[in-house]
Amino acid sequence: MKTHTLLMPLDMHLHLRDAVMLENVAPLSAYSYSGALVMPNLVPPVATLDDVQAYKQRIMAAVPNDYFEPYMTLFYKNYDKAFLESVVDDILALKLYPAGITTNSEGGVSSFDIEEMRPTLQAMSDLGMPLCVHGETDGFVMDREAEFMSIYENLASSFPKLKIIMEHITTKAAVEMLDKYENLYATITVHHLLLTLDDVVGGMMQPHLFCKPIAKRPEDLDALLSVALQAHPKVMFGSDSAPHPQHKKESCGCAAGVFSAPISLQLLCEIFDQYGKLDNLQAFVSDNAQNIYGICPEFKEVVLAQRPFVVPQNYSGVVPMYAGETLNWAIESVE
Amino acid sequence: MKTHTLLMPLDMHLHLRDAVMLENVAPLSAYSYSGALVMPNLVPPVATLDDVQAYKQRIMAAVPNDYFEPYMTLFYKNYDKAFLESVVDDILALKLYPAGITTNSEGGVSSFDIEEMRPTLQAMSDLGMPLCVHGETDGFVMDREAEFMSIYENLASSFPKLKIIMEHITTKAAVEMLDKYENLYATITVHHLLLTLDDVVGGMMQPHLFCKPIAKRPEDLDALLSVALQAHPKVMFGSDSAPHPQHKKESCGCAAGVFSAPISLQLLCEIFDQYGKLDNLQAFVSDNAQNIYGICPEFKEVVLAQRPFVVPQNYSGVVPMYAGETLNWAIESVE
Repeated sequence: MKTHTLLMPLDMHLHLRDAVMLENVAPLSAYSYSGALVMPNLVPPVATLDDVQAYKQRIMAAVPNDYFEPYMTLFYKNYDKAFLESVVDDILALKLYPAGITTNSEGGVSSFDIEEMRPTLQAMSDLGMPLCVHGETDGFVMDREAEFMSIYENLASSFPKLKIIMEHITTKAAVEMLDKYENLYATITVHHLLLTLDDVVGGMMQPHLFCKPIAKRPEDLDALLSVALQAHPKVMFGSDSAPHPQHKKESCGCAAGVFSAPISLQLLCEIFDQYGKLDNLQAFVSDNAQNIYGICPEFKEVVLAQRPFVVPQNYSGVVPMYAGETLNWAIESVE
Repeated sequence: MKTHTLLMPLDMHLHLRDAVMLENVAPLSAYSYSGALVMPNLVPPVATLDDVQAYKQRIMAAVPNDYFEPYMTLFYKNYDKAFLESVVDDILALKLYPAGITTNSEGGVSSFDIEEMRPTLQAMSDLGMPLCVHGETDGFVMDREAEFMSIYENLASSFPKLKIIMEHITTKAAVEMLDKYENLYATITVHHLLLTLDDVVGGMMQPHLFCKPIAKRPEDLDALLSVALQAHPKVMFGSDSAPHPQHKKESCGCAAGVFSAPISLQLLCEIFDQYGKLDNLQAFVSDNAQNIYGICPEFKEVVLAQRPFVVPQNYSGVVPMYAGETLNWAIESVE
């Protein structure tokens, strides 16, 4: 049986939510990942040192062992340097949301006036704090990310020492930014390496594949696959796994988010194997992130095997991507 | 109170289904429309003279009075001229589906080889039988209609005397065909005069606004509005109202179709009034169809008034477009 070993897998964009949902989903990521960058869009958002420390404690209490590191983020607002200095040791990055653009982002940024943001961004740059960005405008759904590119360019050129991570990119336009600005990086989800809009609304409508940013066109998928499969050094895996209760997905007005945490490594193996690029997966799913963020996760060895794995119909009431379908790779052991 | 009178409204693209669903939805169209072109995609499709006659009888039995004319269509296959002659008095048009492209279209056309289709299409042309077409390829969902334009061009130029109706058009590309070929016509739904993809998946996912062809881009909406509001003489109203039971819409794998029959005239008044074009609505919703198809519907006068109308949550288990929302126009009387 063909196997593949991954060391210290990292999920650099993860939604763990809070309370019962946190308790249900955190162990699923902690099982197969060494660590994850945890998004701060709770209600209210994680925006103070107390918030960060308390949320981290709740996450640690929800996972069954010490082998999982929640890398914390702070909800981006305009902060002063003294405050940023007080949190720099407790967070790995700040996460910027345009106001109202996705789940629980109402308190985000409503104007990208560089001068208004300059004190915060310059302080972050000075302190070496990366900026993670949900890069979408409020334009037409298929254009939102591409329209955001001029904002990325403005940010990247105004703060050339600030590490800016274009989160969960979905377009050729974003891929093309990577080689244009030294300080632009990106995460890519596993579902955006598999889906186009066709999978969401091309046949039947598929609420469990509906997310923001929405899956785009075939040429966008090709561009994403290209940089992921070559493990472009500025690209990291970030699942954007986003659990919602089943009733919020399967109803009129279904919430955005694909829940992939418990099947993401299996799917990544399948994709990289299918294209003959398994050797590049280690960089995509761990090494690149270690280099970009300067982190040293604790040792974890995950062995995957090429054997059928039927995705459960749900995990504690949360329906995963590809529920009930059979994947070709399964997790064999974790040490 | 502002009112507007419409004479003999016609819905030139309607799904009435069969059995209980037919009994539930047919009276809703019969109430406000003089007649409707009834689509043949039952299971099995309406493909013989017996099918046509029996289906028409079932429709007539389902509507409460004589003031509604179901104009019948035959499911397009390659037929010989003798057969077409035998059905010419019982149908108004043939409806062509690419195989598998939408609900119950599995028996449709799988290759658009003009030579294979020539005997049928030439006979239809000779007999003056219009061809209604669901014009989508099996390509990427946002490109399917635009990709079909070359097939329309091929059909239109190969059979210049054949009236070809591009059904439920959704794109600027299709609008531009109208003035390019004398024998190309189009129907436009009311939902495609209101929606873009943003309304379907731009915020929450909205299963009751999910249909095929899917609503497209803002510039497509503008082009559709432009020809509809001017009541371009080659354009007719056709609702494509397509009822599904609620559970088939609000679940994983929601079926395609917007149910607009009971609210379509009200919405049309609202749209045409909003743009100051109420005077053109009569042509869009009746006169153009009478001219294009050469039909003389029985007299019906529908008076609409500008007053609030709350759309019911459902009609016998079928959820309409804009359920629970308040429209600005209501049907005042029908005579």
